[in-house]
Amino acid sequence: MTDDSIALPNRDDVEAAAQRIQGLAVRTPLLESPLLNRHLGGRLLVKAEVAQRTGSFKFRGAYNKISALTDQEKSTGVVAFSSGNHAQGVAHAAQLLGVAATIVMPADAPAIKLRNTRAYGAEVVTYDRDREDREDIGRDIAARSGAALVKPFDDPYIIAGQGTVGLEIVEQTIEMGCRPDAIVGPIGGGGLIAGMGLGLDAKMPGIPLFGVEPDDFDDTRRSLDTGRREANPPGRHSICDALLAASPGEATFALNRERLEACLTVSDAEVQTAMAVAFVHLKIVVEPGGSVALAAALSGRISCRDRTVVVVASGGNVDPDTFAAAIDAVDWSAPPVAIS
Amino acid sequence: MTDDSIALPNRDDVEAAAQRIQGLAVRTPLLESPLLNRHLGGRLLVKAEVAQRTGSFKFRGAYNKISALTDQEKSTGVVAFSSGNHAQGVAHAAQLLGVAATIVMPADAPAIKLRNTRAYGAEVVTYDRDREDREDIGRDIAARSGAALVKPFDDPYIIAGQGTVGLEIVEQTIEMGCRPDAIVGPIGGGGLIAGMGLGLDAKMPGIPLFGVEPDDFDDTRRSLDTGRREANPPGRHSICDALLAASPGEATFALNRERLEACLTVSDAEVQTAMAVAFVHLKIVVEPGGSVALAAALSGRISCRDRTVVVVASGGNVDPDTFAAAIDAVDWSAPPVAIS
Repeated sequence: MTDDSIALPNRDDVEAAAQRIQGLAVRTPLLESPLLNRHLGGRLLVKAEVAQRTGSFKFRGAYNKISALTDQEKSTGVVAFSSGNHAQGVAHAAQLLGVAATIVMPADAPAIKLRNTRAYGAEVVTYDRDREDREDIGRDIAARSGAALVKPFDDPYIIAGQGTVGLEIVEQTIEMGCRPDAIVGPIGGGGLIAGMGLGLDAKMPGIPLFGVEPDDFDDTRRSLDTGRREANPPGRHSICDALLAASPGEATFALNRERLEACLTVSDAEVQTAMAVAFVHLKIVVEPGGSVALAAALSGRISCRDRTVVVVASGGNVDPDTFAAAIDAVDWSAPPVAIS
Repeated sequence: MTDDSIALPNRDDVEAAAQRIQGLAVRTPLLESPLLNRHLGGRLLVKAEVAQRTGSFKFRGAYNKISALTDQEKSTGVVAFSSGNHAQGVAHAAQLLGVAATIVMPADAPAIKLRNTRAYGAEVVTYDRDREDREDIGRDIAARSGAALVKPFDDPYIIAGQGTVGLEIVEQTIEMGCRPDAIVGPIGGGGLIAGMGLGLDAKMPGIPLFGVEPDDFDDTRRSLDTGRREANPPGRHSICDALLAASPGEATFALNRERLEACLTVSDAEVQTAMAVAFVHLKIVVEPGGSVALAAALSGRISCRDRTVVVVASGGNVDPDTFAAAIDAVDWSAPPVAIS
């Protein structure tokens, strides 16, 4: 088992990350809708990481990682590979810390993500998602330039940084006088949900934690079944561009298989419905990959009945056409959340 | 001057309203975007009242008003006339307080507003905006049923309730360690901005306060010029359905002419651009009328350069088609907020 040899973050690392990002990361709100609650027969709280700096939770881990580099490491810059949200998080965190950043992104990433990553001052190198391996390209650049590689999820600092989402959820629900019966987040490489487990347990141990993947990218679900890291077959597609990791990370899987209650999946159509419901009832813009946890609650796979459930809306970086298509896909004469 | 005889709320009334709505109204977040800040050369904080219960600030005033009614008044129910946001606010506040509500709404109000008002349990009576007078209809119903009329803006309890937005802005900016150089909000009948002036002054007197109207509904701007309440000519149209009041209220104008620094106007095209910028950079859904203050900042009419400016995004109840049209109206190859 290589798992025994890899560095795993713990609860203290999440608390340390919270100190590092304090005053820089947004303490994103927990939103709710009375109509939605009535529809679900319970209380649904939405952690709106769409309102985070750079439009997704990824800023948390990126800042935690880069700020912890030595001055020597900072001086040679950082390199990252990402479909877009990690790219923006790294680019902006590096910018704030005065560190040069090179980001390797798929050529077919959403235009908004490519544009914003450049706007945060990073150099962007694109690659062909179906023919080239982004990790190889990233490692090549790191080897040539001496830049430190900032991995998207399989790194203890990244996981600890994302874990601050879990810390905040506990703090905020305590402030609201309630205790969540379940907490639900998306899974791409598993960094957010792994960190959340640590962050939750640092404050209020044992709340059931669920991950959600797109139907055709259910590598973590299958890995939990077999007990070993399974990969997704190549050539699959989903509108959830943020959740297309090939397989679970070593560190993330080591944490997730211990902590996760279960991993569920949702369809692209359910994701579009969730985006439309967030538009109408929560007034937030959620990207496809950021909507899977909400989709799991709306579809009933995670029941909210007579319970308090927290779902993470993890990002909002979506192109206008994709957003409009999601809203158009709904039959508004018979809306998904019946309100009469 | 009838102004001397009308009841005007004061700062204490806003503090009392804050107590009444505590734990029921959402303490909505102040959002910001680093890219937007860089574009504007300053700091823009957006008070996201789109995340308020019922999707707009109107819940605050409605709850404050209805909760302060006597048991006798509550027993005969309430009636209100509204284009939609006040309707939803009254309907939901009445529902929470166990009070029957009848709402008079224009037949051409956004479908989402009509639907949601009914969903909150109110009886909805529609009228023709161009041929009937909603105030007459509302008063008729009140006279027949004995129901208490809940005015949309010209009422001290309504103004005081909306003023809690101002209180929160001051509290939140203090928590953030900054002091706003200007605060900007929309004007329909003027209830929100009048209340905000009181709420701000209760905590941090003297911050410059600006109102914004649609170009063709600039009754408050002209009234400030002439010193008397001017009306908008009939037959005008704007996409800002929430801001189509015929003239300033008596109480609201009495307060606003003392407190407002100035009243500005924006075009429907500028409103659409602001909606698109909120979509891309803030990840929130803002309706046309809720976007005018942001539009004033983006257009430069309110300068953010080297300053901290707070704008209120007052509501997010917009039909999907209207929202998609606003996003489509932007040339995304040359986005309104340059990010590179």
